[in-house]
Amino acid sequence: MKELIEEIKEKGIAIGNEILKVDSFLNHQVDVKLMKKIGKEFFEYFKNKNITKVVTIESSGIAPATMTALELDVPLLILKKKKPNTMEDEFIQTTVKSFTKGNEYKLTISKKYINPNDNVIIIDDFLANGESCLGAIRLIEELGGKVQGIGIVIEKSFQPGREKIEKRGYDIYSLARIKKLENGKIEM
Amino acid sequence: MKELIEEIKEKGIAIGNEILKVDSFLNHQVDVKLMKKIGKEFFEYFKNKNITKVVTIESSGIAPATMTALELDVPLLILKKKKPNTMEDEFIQTTVKSFTKGNEYKLTISKKYINPNDNVIIIDDFLANGESCLGAIRLIEELGGKVQGIGIVIEKSFQPGREKIEKRGYDIYSLARIKKLENGKIEM
Repeated sequence: MKELIEEIKEKGIAIGNEILKVDSFLNHQVDVKLMKKIGKEFFEYFKNKNITKVVTIESSGIAPATMTALELDVPLLILKKKKPNTMEDEFIQTTVKSFTKGNEYKLTISKKYINPNDNVIIIDDFLANGESCLGAIRLIEELGGKVQGIGIVIEKSFQPGREKIEKRGYDIYSLARIKKLENGKIEM
Repeated sequence: MKELIEEIKEKGIAIGNEILKVDSFLNHQVDVKLMKKIGKEFFEYFKNKNITKVVTIESSGIAPATMTALELDVPLLILKKKKPNTMEDEFIQTTVKSFTKGNEYKLTISKKYINPNDNVIIIDDFLANGESCLGAIRLIEELGGKVQGIGIVIEKSFQPGREKIEKRGYDIYSLARIKKLENGKIEM
């Protein structure tokens, strides 16, 4: 997506060889007009898949996922990184290891909001090692939902996420793909 | 806001005397069309305040805050509950005690995205004890920004948040006010 790639080139900052800082328009400060365009782009790609629900993982994927759900005219479902105190006995969890943050968490979903009639897309801000996305897939499928595709704002193609997820047969649509981060330079 | 109040009456669940569960349309599953209407409602109320930025706290306020920022045509700024590994030395923090969750966290903002020319509204899903909102006000004002008002989706009026914040002179606009939660009943 041309406009996103230009934003990354202009405002993204490479930290070391692994981290891309985009907190001026995606992760901390959010360019909501760009999010709206991102929502339209995911809509165009997934509109013929009979999507019934958009799933994301808190919290940086919420803004683009909200816009995508609005375009598709379906509810958004936000997976939690721990059980909220409002959830009683109706949830399931899966452990996700975050390589980027060096920790792990319990990705949590209520059983009530995915059922075997659901066709789901997962929307997230980044794809790196793919672990959070694979965790979301496990939860959705355990509840009988079908994952029709994955929409990623920025993919770090030098990390193994895409390969792990494609090997399992899922379609990934990334709006920007980063080939390499090196010496403060971003290679697309 | 009539439509929101009807949603709460129909789908909200009172847990004990303090917790209102609205995870079917606001906190876990999100009714994005309702969020769009909420954004329009906040826009109507705050549109003459020369707002330059919408601020929210991760993560349940992000969807309604995104819609509000879109209506106002300004950026959204998402305050973090801990320092992301992409933030280096350009941030400030304040400790917030969460009575609802029984823990505390370091509310975090980058110095780069608020300056003395900013007129800010804070948008959040719930107002209960007001501590997270007061934390957000501290951070914004420490960077010189002016808080022009606070937009709340659901206010628990039986808890002290509104009083604490109004005492300091801020304008709070709540779209639904819960008077009492008792024996599974929601009183508006």
